Amino acid sequence: MNDFPRIITLTTDFGTSDAYVGTMKGVILGINPNVRVVDLTHAVPPQDIHEAAFIIRSAYRYFPEGTIHTVVVDPGVGSDRQAIVCEIEGAFFVCPDNGVLSYLLQAIDDGTEHRMNAVAIQNPAYHLPQVSNTFHGRDIFAPVAAHLSRGVPLANIGPPVENLVQLPIPTSEVSGNTITGQIVKIDRFGNAITNISESALAGEVSGYEINVQGARLTRINRAYAESPVGEPLAIIGSAGVLEIAVNGGSAEKQLGLKRGDAAIIRKRYDSCQKT
Amino acid sequence: MNDFPRIITLTTDFGTSDAYVGTMKGVILGINPNVRVVDLTHAVPPQDIHEAAFIIRSAYRYFPEGTIHTVVVDPGVGSDRQAIVCEIEGAFFVCPDNGVLSYLLQAIDDGTEHRMNAVAIQNPAYHLPQVSNTFHGRDIFAPVAAHLSRGVPLANIGPPVENLVQLPIPTSEVSGNTITGQIVKIDRFGNAITNISESALAGEVSGYEINVQGARLTRINRAYAESPVGEPLAIIGSAGVLEIAVNGGSAEKQLGLKRGDAAIIRKRYDSCQKT
Amino acid sequence: MNDFPRIITLTTDFGTSDAYVGTMKGVILGINPNVRVVDLTHAVPPQDIHEAAFIIRSAYRYFPEGTIHTVVVDPGVGSDRQAIVCEIEGAFFVCPDNGVLSYLLQAIDDGTEHRMNAVAIQNPAYHLPQVSNTFHGRDIFAPVAAHLSRGVPLANIGPPVENLVQLPIPTSEVSGNTITGQIVKIDRFGNAITNISESALAGEVSGYEINVQGARLTRINRAYAESPVGEPLAIIGSAGVLEIAVNGGSAEKQLGLKRGDAAIIRKRYDSCQKT
Repeated sequence: MNDFPRIITLTTDFGTSDAYVGTMKGVILGINPNVRVVDLTHAVPPQDIHEAAFIIRSAYRYFPEGTIHTVVVDPGVGSDRQAIVCEIEGAFFVCPDNGVLSYLLQAIDDGTEHRMNAVAIQNPAYHLPQVSNTFHGRDIFAPVAAHLSRGVPLANIGPPVENLVQLPIPTSEVSGNTITGQIVKIDRFGNAITNISESALAGEVSGYEINVQGARLTRINRAYAESPVGEPLAIIGSAGVLEIAVNGGSAEKQLGLKRGDAAIIRKRYDSCQKT
Repeated sequence: MNDFPRIITLTTDFGTSDAYVGTMKGVILGINPNVRVVDLTHAVPPQDIHEAAFIIRSAYRYFPEGTIHTVVVDPGVGSDRQAIVCEIEGAFFVCPDNGVLSYLLQAIDDGTEHRMNAVAIQNPAYHLPQVSNTFHGRDIFAPVAAHLSRGVPLANIGPPVENLVQLPIPTSEVSGNTITGQIVKIDRFGNAITNISESALAGEVSGYEINVQGARLTRINRAYAESPVGEPLAIIGSAGVLEIAVNGGSAEKQLGLKRGDAAIIRKRYDSCQKT
Repeated sequence: MNDFPRIITLTTDFGTSDAYVGTMKGVILGINPNVRVVDLTHAVPPQDIHEAAFIIRSAYRYFPEGTIHTVVVDPGVGSDRQAIVCEIEGAFFVCPDNGVLSYLLQAIDDGTEHRMNAVAIQNPAYHLPQVSNTFHGRDIFAPVAAHLSRGVPLANIGPPVENLVQLPIPTSEVSGNTITGQIVKIDRFGNAITNISESALAGEVSGYEINVQGARLTRINRAYAESPVGEPLAIIGSAGVLEIAVNGGSAEKQLGLKRGDAAIIRKRYDSCQKT
């Protein structure tokens, strides 16, 4: 793992109009000049822990083993909220213990992911010498991530912790012919990502009635371009879940969608006979 | 070429508020941990192939030979549009075959650039094992770029292709004393970049009447600061073409300019006698 | 210093919607393929020299010795304004001589920082072969920074310069029980950063009356979360100066704050007896 440069990713709500993120990179490279730093996003809406939790869960699987993911959406900075390092399936997460790992912990609860091992960040030897009240991203999380990337073992960072803060994550439910889910994320294109997984749909592309905020769709596309430009459509997106989109447009704007909106699918068993 | 890290650039319309771009970098670094990844921009307006085509043509010449440019503005993702790798003058372009190389191909047509060599991306050995319907940036373009950066030859990626999709690119025309061009790009400062090249102006800085949407300019500046703050001006910009700007302001806002607007230059031969 | 990759940081007003920044990176990596490039921010408001000056002064201390900071906010590009490299305390600054180093030079004036050594950028051997009128970031500042990162000595870049352009920087003033300062920066969260340093407050957290645009605060928080959500608060922020914030909200929006607004603190000596 140390034959090539390790990777540290950064996910924050700091935006990029200030130098907060760049400063974290200065701290990291001062400790480990050979590590690679990758931005996931810094445009998490301020203090939106749920959004950060969704993003890190979707992205981390695409990084090589041993990658260190630093997630700093931290409204409780300076309070007594705990800071942690959590190892899940060979990936490391450096973050406040405030729920930003909720989607990952849910995946462990439901058996999708397995190993989990967490410590509290307590050893000041791995912090900056001076720790501010408001910017632990720079003073604690960045240096801890950098030290981890040099091979410092978890046990040196602090004592084990067992129960991590876990926000309630909406899950889809199946009842008879009906699947009831929610929109959990709107992306840059205005695509509405639900929590209804491909597997819940059993691989079939038609025979459905999908209702999302007044829009009614009857099939699942293989490509955006299968629908006419400007038409709403359903598709299995890159996260492996059902997305509502508009070909060449924004489902968010056109259908007035937002996070939390219900997405209801009815399987029409009789449709096979009729069509 | 392999003594130092190769470079992969990324140009997309993905924005940076989701982790799409970061995820592509995870895929790339998982395949080639030593490659350098450079963002050109991720703020191409959604599905604006013309804008991406302009950007990649302007930027690629400033990268060292062997750089791999990944351009993912891809409204046809998941449809039967082809994906390609194209080598032009020692640079590699990994992209959908939808016109994002139009400015480059035009430069070949008019003799500004020369060698061109393209293959279709078909060999699944260089894709991620699982390819989604909606995110070939992550599943196909990123891994192909990463494998290329490790020295995989073009011929392994897929069979040669001859005729690439080419959008009509507006060109300026000279007729007598008049040059008629268009605004092809508005930049962050509100500068309006035209398709009228410096060479068409024969190096002279005065003796012109330049008309753009009601504004009338009679000379070409050497510096923005040669005009008073707030004044519209013409200048040869960093792309080697005529730009309309406002010193300390935005020509876009002040003059109401947009892409496609005409820029008309009349050379006033008699002006030499009068001034 | 040359055993590991050197770092070049970039601070500009170029935004990230064009490829201007990416192009600078191409130029840099073409000259020094092993240097690390870190973005501080590219969202400095167009031509806002004061903002760039504040940002670079706050951030540079968190980078390792020998880091090269490229600051291109350059309304005078192409005019006769000078371009410089300035070494301060082991850090290098490559920039126009237009005031972007004002906060740093002020820190030298008041004795916070010490060594300063500057040269004019004049030797064309370290520029791109062709220099445009409008983009010295690409044609001059990026290549000079890259050559510096390869160990080119300052003396090769150009002749020494003594008097650098210095904008008036507002400083806080103490008069009796009153400290009068200003808001010098609003950050992404709407936090208002003042020029009143922690040391001026002598480490005490209460016994104050802080007045900022109609808001009146009587203590200094240790954490945002010490105040109820939605409440204005004062805190020593990550720059070591007083900040006005709103827990879970934006002080900028809620209190209508902007750069230049006065922040006035009265020390209430009698409060010790009363509380």
